[in-house]
Amino acid sequence: MMIQFQCDYNEGAHPAIMERLVATNMEQTAGYGEDSYCARARRAIIEAIGCPDASVHFLVGGTQANTTVIASLLRPYQGVICAHTGHINVHETGAIEHTGHKVLALPANAGKISALQIEQAVADHLAEDGPEHMVQPGMVYISFPTETGTIYSKQQLSDIYSTCQRLNLPLFIDGARLGYGLASPECDITLADLPHLCDVFYIGGTKVGALFGEAVVFTNRRFDVRDFRYHIKQQGAMLAKGRLLGIQFLTLFSDNLYLSISKHAVKQALRIRDAFSRRDIDFLVDSSTNQQFPILTTEQIEILGKQFVFSPWTRIDQSRTAVRFCTSWATRPEAVDALIAAIEKL
Amino acid sequence: MMIQFQCDYNEGAHPAIMERLVATNMEQTAGYGEDSYCARARRAIIEAIGCPDASVHFLVGGTQANTTVIASLLRPYQGVICAHTGHINVHETGAIEHTGHKVLALPANAGKISALQIEQAVADHLAEDGPEHMVQPGMVYISFPTETGTIYSKQQLSDIYSTCQRLNLPLFIDGARLGYGLASPECDITLADLPHLCDVFYIGGTKVGALFGEAVVFTNRRFDVRDFRYHIKQQGAMLAKGRLLGIQFLTLFSDNLYLSISKHAVKQALRIRDAFSRRDIDFLVDSSTNQQFPILTTEQIEILGKQFVFSPWTRIDQSRTAVRFCTSWATRPEAVDALIAAIEKL
Amino acid sequence: MMIQFQCDYNEGAHPAIMERLVATNMEQTAGYGEDSYCARARRAIIEAIGCPDASVHFLVGGTQANTTVIASLLRPYQGVICAHTGHINVHETGAIEHTGHKVLALPANAGKISALQIEQAVADHLAEDGPEHMVQPGMVYISFPTETGTIYSKQQLSDIYSTCQRLNLPLFIDGARLGYGLASPECDITLADLPHLCDVFYIGGTKVGALFGEAVVFTNRRFDVRDFRYHIKQQGAMLAKGRLLGIQFLTLFSDNLYLSISKHAVKQALRIRDAFSRRDIDFLVDSSTNQQFPILTTEQIEILGKQFVFSPWTRIDQSRTAVRFCTSWATRPEAVDALIAAIEKL
Amino acid sequence: MMIQFQCDYNEGAHPAIMERLVATNMEQTAGYGEDSYCARARRAIIEAIGCPDASVHFLVGGTQANTTVIASLLRPYQGVICAHTGHINVHETGAIEHTGHKVLALPANAGKISALQIEQAVADHLAEDGPEHMVQPGMVYISFPTETGTIYSKQQLSDIYSTCQRLNLPLFIDGARLGYGLASPECDITLADLPHLCDVFYIGGTKVGALFGEAVVFTNRRFDVRDFRYHIKQQGAMLAKGRLLGIQFLTLFSDNLYLSISKHAVKQALRIRDAFSRRDIDFLVDSSTNQQFPILTTEQIEILGKQFVFSPWTRIDQSRTAVRFCTSWATRPEAVDALIAAIEKL
Repeated sequence: MMIQFQCDYNEGAHPAIMERLVATNMEQTAGYGEDSYCARARRAIIEAIGCPDASVHFLVGGTQANTTVIASLLRPYQGVICAHTGHINVHETGAIEHTGHKVLALPANAGKISALQIEQAVADHLAEDGPEHMVQPGMVYISFPTETGTIYSKQQLSDIYSTCQRLNLPLFIDGARLGYGLASPECDITLADLPHLCDVFYIGGTKVGALFGEAVVFTNRRFDVRDFRYHIKQQGAMLAKGRLLGIQFLTLFSDNLYLSISKHAVKQALRIRDAFSRRDIDFLVDSSTNQQFPILTTEQIEILGKQFVFSPWTRIDQSRTAVRFCTSWATRPEAVDALIAAIEKL
Repeated sequence: MMIQFQCDYNEGAHPAIMERLVATNMEQTAGYGEDSYCARARRAIIEAIGCPDASVHFLVGGTQANTTVIASLLRPYQGVICAHTGHINVHETGAIEHTGHKVLALPANAGKISALQIEQAVADHLAEDGPEHMVQPGMVYISFPTETGTIYSKQQLSDIYSTCQRLNLPLFIDGARLGYGLASPECDITLADLPHLCDVFYIGGTKVGALFGEAVVFTNRRFDVRDFRYHIKQQGAMLAKGRLLGIQFLTLFSDNLYLSISKHAVKQALRIRDAFSRRDIDFLVDSSTNQQFPILTTEQIEILGKQFVFSPWTRIDQSRTAVRFCTSWATRPEAVDALIAAIEKL
Repeated sequence: MMIQFQCDYNEGAHPAIMERLVATNMEQTAGYGEDSYCARARRAIIEAIGCPDASVHFLVGGTQANTTVIASLLRPYQGVICAHTGHINVHETGAIEHTGHKVLALPANAGKISALQIEQAVADHLAEDGPEHMVQPGMVYISFPTETGTIYSKQQLSDIYSTCQRLNLPLFIDGARLGYGLASPECDITLADLPHLCDVFYIGGTKVGALFGEAVVFTNRRFDVRDFRYHIKQQGAMLAKGRLLGIQFLTLFSDNLYLSISKHAVKQALRIRDAFSRRDIDFLVDSSTNQQFPILTTEQIEILGKQFVFSPWTRIDQSRTAVRFCTSWATRPEAVDALIAAIEKL
Repeated sequence: MMIQFQCDYNEGAHPAIMERLVATNMEQTAGYGEDSYCARARRAIIEAIGCPDASVHFLVGGTQANTTVIASLLRPYQGVICAHTGHINVHETGAIEHTGHKVLALPANAGKISALQIEQAVADHLAEDGPEHMVQPGMVYISFPTETGTIYSKQQLSDIYSTCQRLNLPLFIDGARLGYGLASPECDITLADLPHLCDVFYIGGTKVGALFGEAVVFTNRRFDVRDFRYHIKQQGAMLAKGRLLGIQFLTLFSDNLYLSISKHAVKQALRIRDAFSRRDIDFLVDSSTNQQFPILTTEQIEILGKQFVFSPWTRIDQSRTAVRFCTSWATRPEAVDALIAAIEKL
């Protein structure tokens, strides 16, 4: 049996979630997220982020969350600024464009973009002779952590958000792996900082302990997003048995579960990182979260590939490829032990 | 505690499904529906419908299924013919229009449209002087059972499909409540008849025993739908942990579970129908499936409303309203006993 | 040679327009409507309507004008209320739906809808249990004159606009044939009344003397439509040599040309109406504008069809069809003389 | 009075076109391009390109032509490959994305992309693990001449088209300035070669002698584009008085007018090019068509800017900017004389 480090959604849900789902299974509740579990989960999240005016909506998946949020914030002629490597730019089959909006991709540095780049992109647009012939930058999308596991520092986020505020652009943080970012030893922000660093973000459940589910949080500090439930429904993202989302997030936000399982995942990832480092194997980027991108030779890939599943990521040169190893809340330390042993024998 | 007959998604999933989800929870599988559970579920469905060339795709919800199928079949300037009361026309927040297509609504008779109406709609279009100024009818959508619980006879379906074949229009059957249609004592078709009566249909799971999930079946007899997985992903309808859908449908299509739980629901609904009938209470339509639409006086609604939850449907006149009582796989006979007792006291 | 009463765009432009186009042909101007002719035309229109805060934009055609205005005013989950017979509902190949919005069609009475119908449609929406499952009414579209030549009275318009104001809905008047409405002897409004009776309207040029062109006027009294030029460009509706529109509208709004040529058209139409009336021939609707819809027998259609071109409109019964005769600024009185002579011989 | 070299649409139309428009002004014809002038213009173009099976459609402007053609050829999940500098990628306000499609931009070399780049882009897509998570390349768009005035050689076009044929991708050539490309002394293709080098192209009128208008030509050799008129109408691109387009293109394709006026424009552009070259002034790219992009110092720009209008294009460094000088069919040799004199004095 192969051991999988292929992605962070290989397993089902944290056992505590399965228990709650089973325990509540035959209860009768209203549909579409208007049940008491959703209400309680919303309150738990609002308390955890310390933002009483926030509104919280539960969606099933990340592409839905990204598409619904972005389509709700842009005017038809506006586009969304993001890193060239951003998930919405490369791995969502044009779901954003399908809603009519251009993705304005900027060159990424280790998966990140900077306040300066955003400022420049907007300045370039305004400097155009006839700006209406170009897509108007209408909001900014970043991922935390990024698609390659890196994280923005508090200062970087703060700079980006100040720039967005000055330019009147909503800032949206894709938190599909939010827990794994917050759990990083290099992370200098907390969940409660987020509402001060952006206008809307989502707390990823699918990759962090849930069967599925993303909690979209609008801080409502600068922008008043009316009628978001209409957007959700129109995008086909309103789950009939919405309580499944409420129950899951309520569990994740009880007893600090979300962060504690995230820490477990990151701890295992760093063990893997250290094992590769000890063998002087380089990395595509310097990641302190649950995704690690060592650069391996074809031979090393072949050897590790006999026992472990992991993903090819980027061809580096004729003989070397960056690959991805993911851990998650579900990663067994014994599986990592086995991987480390294999790395040491490389 | 109120007893709910409000809809057919008040509870979680059939216990057999919950058991399988728990039992497989920590297994590692590939994502996005490319795991062995999905493969087995696809085979089970293909066997059940007796259509070896069919392709089966699992989506999370009904709006997603409708939108993704319809957007995959229409050219940009085409619209979808449906009943005025069709779900896509009234209860999906314009999700079809959001993909760029007009819903061409025809007057419904007890929720149904006829082969003749379809033929006439297409003839009217072609008779236009300058048909390109109007939306071209590009496919037909019907629901089985309909939104008001009625069902098409085999002859009616056969007529509609012959017409669609002659006019080169794909026919799509929304089976959000398919089980409850097939389980009706008045239904003269079987699951295995469906591939001969349409080009694509879906087998509803959300309302028939699953936590969520709809199995879209393309018969591939007349139309070759390429690249449907791209459509699914673009619509935000590709579940990361796709196996959750595979496990659920595999369970529903083992031991005839899908039909047996459907029969239970219909049996309970007919008990309710008979109770109202015995009181000489009229119905909005003559339904033999899991939804019943008795026409009640304001006073009757008030009395029953003290103990039971049900939905207002259509105002009939100053003093009377058609309301909806739904049963499902989860309806307890004792709950129906209580309702019948209350009806008898009206 | 057949005499054409088929539509109101059979000829080119009013000679005064052709003269100006030729006279200015080799001048060099900026593109995209940023030339001095457009500026002057905008001022002439603003003066004619007496609404100094209005913004005026020139588009090439009616479908463009409708689509661009509507897409600029609606949120993604909103639809536009209109008459079932409205041009956007039937004769624009789903251009509105193509921008993602449902057309919420209400039954029309002689092409018109009422304030009460609008109020009821919105009330019905709000009364829904779960309004977010339905398209939200987001604006109202009416045509003046309507597609069947009828006109709203000042009182009717005023009632509709009051209702829209109370419901916070923008009101948009499609004025493709605006001149022919204002020129009607039954019309009790003037061009200068329009800014007080709606939020946006357009002054049709294509059918009223121009080669092409529609002047969209936002009153900016209630709604601030930002960045409309971006919308125009995105819709492919920004003419490179925008001055062609400016020159045409400047000419139409010099020396009262727009109204005087409209009056000519209506006068000729009423001569046709009276000729049919004298023969006791009924009409589909009672029109006092440039379109007349007599109900003719198959035999009468055949006889008139030998000499004149006109359009079939609506089948009335086995033997009778309503047909359309259009006049325009270009209709020669001699052509109408010939038609009247033929009618008298029927 | 400033002399304008700002763009190639500063003036009206070639006098021969104005004459024909005036001469035919009061004729009565059918609308929407179904008149005899359009029919004759279509035949004239089909004869000029020597492709009897081609279908020809007239649209008003370039953005319309690009959007309508691309939207008619792509499936919803597909994107269009083009140069990063391509008009559809930068100067159409996201009109392509507005129809739901991603623009897949490749790095351009002097405005051009290569067969190899296209091949690689498709190979990269297919090599993806889960290609359905990315937009599928569905067609290729190039401009001839490019946005910076360069032209593909016959060999380059032939290589690109062979690649597209092998990959089953439609190839679309944007010919907004087609005449100015064909008239270049470096051009080694003729109009009659085009149907053998792509699947669809358009012959630009707006910038080459017409008031407005683009003739879209589908060769119908590999792809059968059904129902294109529905697409045109839906995009708001169907001109009511369609004959205006027929008359213009009929004139342009009589007496070799299209090519002869194009040659005039190129001749004047090359005079400008030579004048800058004689002063050892560098160019952004090596253009042999009607657009020239000399790199000027701030001081030189200031001096020339006193007498001439031209456009800033790209900042090169602190002190130098590439600017654009355009000629057209309407450029007076005396205006170029004046410009050359000024250049010589720099």
